[in-house]
Amino acid sequence: MKRTLYAGAVRSENIGQTVTLKGWVARRRDLGGLIFIDLRDREGIMQLVVNPEIVSAEVLATAESLRSEFVIDVMGTVVARGQANDKLATGQVELEVSSLTVLNTAKTTPFEIKDDLEASDDTRMRYRYLDLRRPEMLATFKLRHNVTKAIRHYLDDLDFIDVETPILTKSTPEGARDYLVPSRISEGHFYALPQSPQITKQLLMTAGFDRYYQIVKCFRDEDLRGDRQPEFTQVDLETSFLDENEIQDLTEGLIAKVMKDTKNIDVSLPFPRMSYDEAVNRYGSDKPDTRFDMLLTDVTDIAKTVDFKVFSQAKVVKAIVAKNAADKYSRKEIDKLTEFAKQFGAKGLAWVKFDKGEFAGPIAKFLPEITDGLSNKLTLTDNDLVLFVADELEIANATLGALRSRIAKEQHLIDQTLYNFLWVVDWPMFEWSDEESRYTSAHHPFTLPTEASAHELEGDLSKVRAVAYDIVLNGYELGGGSLRINRKDLQERMFKALGFSEKSATEQFGFLLEAMTYGFPPHGGLALGLDRFVMLLAGKDNIREVIAFPKNNKATDPMTQAPSLVSDKQLDELALSISKSRTKLEND
Amino acid sequence: MKRTLYAGAVRSENIGQTVTLKGWVARRRDLGGLIFIDLRDREGIMQLVVNPEIVSAEVLATAESLRSEFVIDVMGTVVARGQANDKLATGQVELEVSSLTVLNTAKTTPFEIKDDLEASDDTRMRYRYLDLRRPEMLATFKLRHNVTKAIRHYLDDLDFIDVETPILTKSTPEGARDYLVPSRISEGHFYALPQSPQITKQLLMTAGFDRYYQIVKCFRDEDLRGDRQPEFTQVDLETSFLDENEIQDLTEGLIAKVMKDTKNIDVSLPFPRMSYDEAVNRYGSDKPDTRFDMLLTDVTDIAKTVDFKVFSQAKVVKAIVAKNAADKYSRKEIDKLTEFAKQFGAKGLAWVKFDKGEFAGPIAKFLPEITDGLSNKLTLTDNDLVLFVADELEIANATLGALRSRIAKEQHLIDQTLYNFLWVVDWPMFEWSDEESRYTSAHHPFTLPTEASAHELEGDLSKVRAVAYDIVLNGYELGGGSLRINRKDLQERMFKALGFSEKSATEQFGFLLEAMTYGFPPHGGLALGLDRFVMLLAGKDNIREVIAFPKNNKATDPMTQAPSLVSDKQLDELALSISKSRTKLEND
Repeated sequence: MKRTLYAGAVRSENIGQTVTLKGWVARRRDLGGLIFIDLRDREGIMQLVVNPEIVSAEVLATAESLRSEFVIDVMGTVVARGQANDKLATGQVELEVSSLTVLNTAKTTPFEIKDDLEASDDTRMRYRYLDLRRPEMLATFKLRHNVTKAIRHYLDDLDFIDVETPILTKSTPEGARDYLVPSRISEGHFYALPQSPQITKQLLMTAGFDRYYQIVKCFRDEDLRGDRQPEFTQVDLETSFLDENEIQDLTEGLIAKVMKDTKNIDVSLPFPRMSYDEAVNRYGSDKPDTRFDMLLTDVTDIAKTVDFKVFSQAKVVKAIVAKNAADKYSRKEIDKLTEFAKQFGAKGLAWVKFDKGEFAGPIAKFLPEITDGLSNKLTLTDNDLVLFVADELEIANATLGALRSRIAKEQHLIDQTLYNFLWVVDWPMFEWSDEESRYTSAHHPFTLPTEASAHELEGDLSKVRAVAYDIVLNGYELGGGSLRINRKDLQERMFKALGFSEKSATEQFGFLLEAMTYGFPPHGGLALGLDRFVMLLAGKDNIREVIAFPKNNKATDPMTQAPSLVSDKQLDELALSISKSRTKLEND
Repeated sequence: MKRTLYAGAVRSENIGQTVTLKGWVARRRDLGGLIFIDLRDREGIMQLVVNPEIVSAEVLATAESLRSEFVIDVMGTVVARGQANDKLATGQVELEVSSLTVLNTAKTTPFEIKDDLEASDDTRMRYRYLDLRRPEMLATFKLRHNVTKAIRHYLDDLDFIDVETPILTKSTPEGARDYLVPSRISEGHFYALPQSPQITKQLLMTAGFDRYYQIVKCFRDEDLRGDRQPEFTQVDLETSFLDENEIQDLTEGLIAKVMKDTKNIDVSLPFPRMSYDEAVNRYGSDKPDTRFDMLLTDVTDIAKTVDFKVFSQAKVVKAIVAKNAADKYSRKEIDKLTEFAKQFGAKGLAWVKFDKGEFAGPIAKFLPEITDGLSNKLTLTDNDLVLFVADELEIANATLGALRSRIAKEQHLIDQTLYNFLWVVDWPMFEWSDEESRYTSAHHPFTLPTEASAHELEGDLSKVRAVAYDIVLNGYELGGGSLRINRKDLQERMFKALGFSEKSATEQFGFLLEAMTYGFPPHGGLALGLDRFVMLLAGKDNIREVIAFPKNNKATDPMTQAPSLVSDKQLDELALSISKSRTKLEND
């Protein structure tokens, strides 16, 4: 029999109708001579009642055989429920069963299919198809679909063209580590999976597509953490002839539509703009969470004057104030903060508690002369906890920024209903890499430098500024973009500044440089991290929760056991060998 | 200045307006003291006029410097054109230029940017960004976007959920050759790029998603030809609880919407159904082109009776008739057909010409007694050419099927305006592979056998029929689908029939077999080849024409030179070595 409607969609208006439903047995209870079954499908749960006085002996026997997660096909009449269940959307009605068929049986599942789950991450991933059967997971993937739908409708309406770019691309060492794909036809040669379709979309601009978008998989072979996966999805867009403000406006409209369509929230436009310098100096982060204050204050001038070497000899002394929280941080708690601070390169964490006009704590004895100065500058009130980092500017910023977030979470300072979007603008073009002992691109080598600073490409690279913009939501980098270089000479200067030899620039990017000689238009764009955006909209704290079949922290899928060993024939065809014995591999 | 509208969108209603346009110089002509410029952008071409008596000396100098493919920003007033150009959508108007800026210059392009192109495939691919600049290419990618938009709207409206499945998956030797991706974290282990998300979408069904779709990249490392690329795109869908007719209906609705939205064609529903046996026996193909007749006729009974060993000793003798075409095929032409026939395994090609009740040609002398019989059976009329293949049934079918298509093309028998969709149904489950000396899956090992034939899994595999359906358009397989196995015991029997040991079935597909023990619902689905569909809608004969950045026949991208050599560091990190010296590779 054909299903009439979803079980979770049955309502009072269906009373009296004979309907066929299909789904999973969520629960069976035998009560007062009747058998009650909770039938679950994609849209919700619906109560079935099997009455031995009505149904045939065969249907009764079938009903008695049912166990959780059996798949059934059931027909019956929708009736009003004696006692309505307001917790269920179907709670006004139940189905009086007339016929019942088991479509498939089920063993006892490794965990119960319900939202309050007590299974380990590994068990959840091993039985991902059961984990996804839980209502909250299904709801997350419906949300994800609604987000992409809203994005597509918005961009389609603005005449963007959705173009698919290749997954088998060329490896370029600049940036993160590539996933490689050995070629069988060109032995010893490799494709790379794209870290982003950056160059390809720029080429679509010189091809005259004018407005391009794609919701596209990207790949980075990096070590994993909560908001990173080997493959992730990006809302990728590029436009010709628009300036950075036009691209930002357009993006804001996109975000506003997503928020309205999926959360029914009206976000106020335009989003605030904050310079990179303000973000790192005041929030200690280039992706500031503006849902709470606790800003960083530079107290170097005041702190330098005291007879406390940690302060007086430091390049900078910066502080944050945990308002009215001094009594909540014991010395042991503060020791934990100190350990945490060290992860960000700080040598230590100085602190005082403020009460009745005086400082207390181990370093209080050094500070009597500056108590008023500091308390004025930091607008201290009773029971405030002040945390200082005295160090290089960048370490002080990064450490206090991290402490700021941690304390805000610990002290529940964050209004979880807020969605604070903002733009971080005025980015430096380069950042110094200690690892590589050279400047690397803060975004990527195709970013347009500002006209005012481009001459520093041959001077002080720390002074080159980029026409770049990141969009930040609640302390997460949601995405970023820039205007791009469209002239060969400027692109060549950029490669040179990054340390490329002419030969290596040509080998890796010669086709782009050549393209720039054939009428490459001014262009720019942006990419949004879809997984992260959906994660924040779904109120989750790990992108695994919004990816149907994610990898674990070892980039492995516990369900299929990918990656796996392959046959010698497969390796031979690729002219590859593994620098490890097969026996050793199998024992690994 | 902000662009007011696309150059190609200017119309009579804009007359009198001052507008800013941006785009590429398609052509510059100096005529009667004026400079005429054809400005091209995404939407078309618009004529600009620079009048030395109106513009500044600077603007005039700029106009005089313009060459083809320069990128310009131009402002002016829209005026009526003295002599309208009806070939252009903008032909009623022109722009009287007041200011003009060059945004970027261009060298002479390797080919002129126009639709009648005379560049080699390799040149086109090397400068793909210029090739894509041609109006017909842009139009193709707009069409492609409109196709995917129609598909998404249709499936969204039917409550399908768009779910992204992984690109880094597990390698399974069954099927075509996988592209492999070495893992860095698990040395010696490999991911595979998916040939299709087949198992994953089945798992989404047991997860209760009920209706899934995705427009998704798939990968096969096979040798390439016109309608194959290493990566291709599939419209992938799967449903629970529907039977094959419901899935076919749903697909027909999808196709009808695409045809209406993109070509404004009303296709008539339902599509014809043809059995696999009829398709191969009457059309010589499992993807019959029904836009023309010339069906295959079995004349074995008649042909057996003559004293001509080729006929009398053959298993079958089948024929096609090229109506009224005998005079168009000289002996030399027929020799070419014979060579062609041999590619399909036929030992040769027998032929006669029919005229005034008699056969002519080298074998005519054997046929006097059966002239009437054959001419009746084949309804011959004057000037018909009859081609016979006497061979095994499969070879006769395949050869005559290929000849049928070739002659139809040569004789222009095909109405190019037709879109003939049909379903091929009643598929065999298995096909014999000479290469592997075993039966392999005609579709894949997850296809549901018909109830009536499932017992032959332990008997005669050639007799097992599948609940499978292919959708065919104009002789191309547009896609295919089936109901799937949802019970462990049946899936295990299927693996056994395919020659899997229990160990290898468990190693490769253990997770699927296990999933089938936890309430796996009845389900089925379909996949459409998007590239091929768009190719046919765009009237192209190679899928490269509808893929923005395709690979050539060596799976190489002549533009970026992917695949390429990678650094020793990259190989070391993957614990890989290449069974060929670096020097040799560089000289390859």
